[in-house]
Amino acid sequence: MALKKILVANRGEIAVRIIRAAKDLGITTVQVYSKADAQMLAVRLADEAIEIGPAHPAKSYLKIDAILQAAFATGADAVHPGYGFLAENAAFAEAVEAAGLVFIGPTAETIRTMGDKAAARASAQAAGVPVVPGSDGVLDDLASAPALAEAVGYPVMIKAAAGGGGRGIRVARNQDELEALLPQASQEARAAFGDGSLYLERFVARARHVEVQILGDGRSAIHLHERECSLQRRRQKVWEEAPAAALPPDIRAKLCASAVRLAEACHYRGAGTLEYLYDDASREFFFIEMNTRIQVEHPVTEMVTGIDLLKAMIRIAGGEPLGLTQADIALRGHAIEVRINAEDAAKNFQPDPGTVTALTVPGGFGVRFDTMLYPGYTVPPFYDSLLGKLVVWDDTRDGAILRLRRALGELKVEGITTTAPLHDALARDPDVLAGRVHTGWLEGWLSTASIDSPSTAGGVTS
Amino acid sequence: MALKKILVANRGEIAVRIIRAAKDLGITTVQVYSKADAQMLAVRLADEAIEIGPAHPAKSYLKIDAILQAAFATGADAVHPGYGFLAENAAFAEAVEAAGLVFIGPTAETIRTMGDKAAARASAQAAGVPVVPGSDGVLDDLASAPALAEAVGYPVMIKAAAGGGGRGIRVARNQDELEALLPQASQEARAAFGDGSLYLERFVARARHVEVQILGDGRSAIHLHERECSLQRRRQKVWEEAPAAALPPDIRAKLCASAVRLAEACHYRGAGTLEYLYDDASREFFFIEMNTRIQVEHPVTEMVTGIDLLKAMIRIAGGEPLGLTQADIALRGHAIEVRINAEDAAKNFQPDPGTVTALTVPGGFGVRFDTMLYPGYTVPPFYDSLLGKLVVWDDTRDGAILRLRRALGELKVEGITTTAPLHDALARDPDVLAGRVHTGWLEGWLSTASIDSPSTAGGVTS
Repeated sequence: MALKKILVANRGEIAVRIIRAAKDLGITTVQVYSKADAQMLAVRLADEAIEIGPAHPAKSYLKIDAILQAAFATGADAVHPGYGFLAENAAFAEAVEAAGLVFIGPTAETIRTMGDKAAARASAQAAGVPVVPGSDGVLDDLASAPALAEAVGYPVMIKAAAGGGGRGIRVARNQDELEALLPQASQEARAAFGDGSLYLERFVARARHVEVQILGDGRSAIHLHERECSLQRRRQKVWEEAPAAALPPDIRAKLCASAVRLAEACHYRGAGTLEYLYDDASREFFFIEMNTRIQVEHPVTEMVTGIDLLKAMIRIAGGEPLGLTQADIALRGHAIEVRINAEDAAKNFQPDPGTVTALTVPGGFGVRFDTMLYPGYTVPPFYDSLLGKLVVWDDTRDGAILRLRRALGELKVEGITTTAPLHDALARDPDVLAGRVHTGWLEGWLSTASIDSPSTAGGVTS
Repeated sequence: MALKKILVANRGEIAVRIIRAAKDLGITTVQVYSKADAQMLAVRLADEAIEIGPAHPAKSYLKIDAILQAAFATGADAVHPGYGFLAENAAFAEAVEAAGLVFIGPTAETIRTMGDKAAARASAQAAGVPVVPGSDGVLDDLASAPALAEAVGYPVMIKAAAGGGGRGIRVARNQDELEALLPQASQEARAAFGDGSLYLERFVARARHVEVQILGDGRSAIHLHERECSLQRRRQKVWEEAPAAALPPDIRAKLCASAVRLAEACHYRGAGTLEYLYDDASREFFFIEMNTRIQVEHPVTEMVTGIDLLKAMIRIAGGEPLGLTQADIALRGHAIEVRINAEDAAKNFQPDPGTVTALTVPGGFGVRFDTMLYPGYTVPPFYDSLLGKLVVWDDTRDGAILRLRRALGELKVEGITTTAPLHDALARDPDVLAGRVHTGWLEGWLSTASIDSPSTAGGVTS
């Protein structure tokens, strides 16, 4: 059953991306919006738009009933959740399907399993995917921790089971530190998350973040190669690449094969990503988590494979088979995405929402700018600071970096301070040029670097 | 010797394209401009800009001395001629090289040979490239024409040797018509071009225009597959595709191989295009001419091959070897380019220059808009009406057409009437969808079609 009308249960640039994919398939779209978002680009591009509540996400984009009512009112037959908000909420996927609509994503069961750290880890191990050595699930009692840490090897991370996004994490370098930190961590986790459960993991220092894009139709799955996203600030990715240039070919093959094993083991449906840490020194990779949704950085994979991931998700949700085998997926060239946020990197990334008084979009071969901006648009202060993603492609990584600098020079967002100057500085840094980075690199660099405004180009000789 | 500073001897969108390619290679750029073009985008994007004369092309963009002086004044070491203006002027290529600068294109000798219809035809025949049956060169005397026409087969075209761009062409369906038209054509050619020489060619009715992109370094040459550009008005292309969907695979292979033979025979340097007519019924193709420069429609080839043609031209001019073999060139998907002109298709393509009061550029995966426009820019009335080229890519031709409709829906150029509505209508026409077109198709269609304004999308339900 091919889909006819898709409701977009999200906002910002990903809503625009979903609408474009639907139109590219000849499918009608309905955009939901909060009171604060009536002027957003997705509302303008969709065939229909419907208000679902006030600005606060809990009263609009996170409100399952309001979204289902909007779907009924507009006659939508499917819902795309985008990323964030309800995208990894199993109850939402269930409610959508219980209402007789198609959820464009995996089954609620897959979302639930992969959203549970211990269950995801167990699934990975069962599929032969290496995980970070550590406690398999939460610690039954704190007294067992020192022996386990000895087996795993110091330094170890103490993590709150109910934590997320990097919150509730501590590192112990030896048994003394471990014994001092454990009760303290448990108490704080109980206070912060209402759950004092902890688990232990080996701390992989100076690791790279690599991840594998997979696509499945519930029967078979393939990978679309990997991305490297080691440049992070507060565990938020700011710069992403495909492929991961630092991976030796044999490791890349093993990494991608491991992702397909897990995807097939859970009969994965739609687009998903397995995230890993990679240790250059030991050439080991470790599964950390699976994201059961489209990711912000999906365009770099589209640029190097030629596969439109959003169109693929929609087709699969409409009941079409995958229609691709692993042999159909060829890697071509190198792609880089940088996140353009409404933040002032020179002022500790202070958010800077406001009105776009003028906009110049970079262009030409190998340049793509996925954005929610248009001239005159006022960025509301209530949501994520992501304004757009500047994506460049070239046949080599060096060429892609030169093109990135050129495209950043063309991009002008007037009225709002953006993170473009940060990316211009990164695109000239010797470590970034050589790919000598790890997940802690950017925070170290930020503590010493000064980010200038981009240099002004041009000058007329007459 | 790698190039350091390129002077762009052109204007409009191709000047922007050349500057981007140079920047993508880390090369500095100098943009020349006429008094009417001080505000053009290329002037803003180039590292330096220099005025070379008044608006009239003969006093600026066609003035060899003024361009060479600009190159000396700015210390440029190479000149890119773009297309049109001096791009196929052998004397310009000679003057550039005599001045010790690099001409980014083929040798003056190649330009001269291919610019001479009879010499180009003889070169093609010598390389085993089929040409349209006809007189090999100009008719020595009009009395020999009927016997030749009989051998070639009616209908025949009578062409003025000094004509071009479709001017000075007549079609005779039999000997009576031929004998009536010949003296008349000769007289008119003398009046129009100062040269009454004529030649005869078989008139290939309902032919497709196909062309092969080639790239050479003076030693070896490869092809980058073919394009189809059958949708033309007054012999100007308006819609171009890669690959040519109507070609059977065996014909495609022979066509492309023939182009490489001619390119290698003339030790071709840089990017060039061999133009052919293709007759669906007889499955024959005939060489018509070679363009010794980059073409307007080059982006469709870039989209399906992943090869940046402008970067390749610059590298070759800098002395680098081709660095590619035929086996490196893979075709991926399908691309379509439509020309967005400042013309009102509903009013017989009346030019409509003016000021761009607002601009919305289409975006997303598989969409590229190569343009000279920016908000506030005033299009001067002195030059070509091409404003930009909307290029779409998808894995299939059907998908590319859907994406083209979507991108045309996003494109907004306020303040100027453009040909976007024409393309929207074409993208919904059954003959275009089925690829049932030939070089006369569009003019026939225009004589019956009514082109509306694009339908307004959107509508808010609250």
